[in-house]
Amino acid sequence: MPGVGPKTAQRLALHLLKRPEADVEGLAQAIIDAKKQVGLCKICHHLSAEPVCDLCRHPNRDNTIICVVGDSRDVIALEKTREYQGKYHVLGGVISPMDGIGPEQLNIESLVRRVSQQRPQEVILAINPSVEGETTTLYVGQLLKPFTKVTRIAFGLPMGGDLEYADEVTLARALEGRRELDF
Amino acid sequence: MPGVGPKTAQRLALHLLKRPEADVEGLAQAIIDAKKQVGLCKICHHLSAEPVCDLCRHPNRDNTIICVVGDSRDVIALEKTREYQGKYHVLGGVISPMDGIGPEQLNIESLVRRVSQQRPQEVILAINPSVEGETTTLYVGQLLKPFTKVTRIAFGLPMGGDLEYADEVTLARALEGRRELDF
Repeated sequence: MPGVGPKTAQRLALHLLKRPEADVEGLAQAIIDAKKQVGLCKICHHLSAEPVCDLCRHPNRDNTIICVVGDSRDVIALEKTREYQGKYHVLGGVISPMDGIGPEQLNIESLVRRVSQQRPQEVILAINPSVEGETTTLYVGQLLKPFTKVTRIAFGLPMGGDLEYADEVTLARALEGRRELDF
Repeated sequence: MPGVGPKTAQRLALHLLKRPEADVEGLAQAIIDAKKQVGLCKICHHLSAEPVCDLCRHPNRDNTIICVVGDSRDVIALEKTREYQGKYHVLGGVISPMDGIGPEQLNIESLVRRVSQQRPQEVILAINPSVEGETTTLYVGQLLKPFTKVTRIAFGLPMGGDLEYADEVTLARALEGRRELDF
């Protein structure tokens, strides 16, 4: 499991052996239940215990804007900001020929279908800024452009960041993406 | 000195004592010379051995654009990107009432004079995104707005960054600063 090496594994195992039997069985059952119950939302492919997830069913969320992310973790991260009130679409990864992941392995077809049918006012591509992420952003952007306005999140200095410690590519992007000051 | 604690100081001192006398005198002289010769550029306040620095005197740099930074270190960082070909203006810090630094302690008056006389096409505010930096950006921006177009660098995800690990404020800024995809 990620982040669990041999020493941590041993510590966890010994801890479980010390606990009462009921507790351990409870944990085992919870793991089985989680695996059985949690699937993917039919619409946005975010993790969900129901066929359609809470975010897609939410009556007050903006239907006219869809935010496309690589992974369910990104949905959770964006939800924490409490800034975004639209819908999501989880691709389930990024295009990475080195790892054998092409567009057909991702939820891109369902996204294009969804956008061409629903015609949202805007699709925000919020895919991580790596080489694979950039490829995916351009690929998906090109497919969606005939149907709607396609935007991407800003790249630049993180808050509390320092020009001196930023890498050259980030600084160049921050300069390139400069915006007029509005008071 | 920054980054030199008691142990490092002792190591450096003992190292110098072991070196030939000529070497040590050379170092001492170099320090004296550096302090004597390096001053601030009369125009942009960047570090310079001449009254006017290399960047201000450079014949091929764009005179119609000025990039305002807090510190000389930021000029060096931006120069490393090789993306920016305009001029600079170094404020010499940011507005920070807690540390007793007000606008009059910074090179803001000379900036306003320079902009009102030269009338560049654009002033880019490239000040670090901290609370003090934001205050400075807004203060300087308001002063310069009557004379020219004022922009600021982009804030958002750094390159190679990950939505999952970005703090909420950075993510919110990245969403807010989204731009239309251009192919």
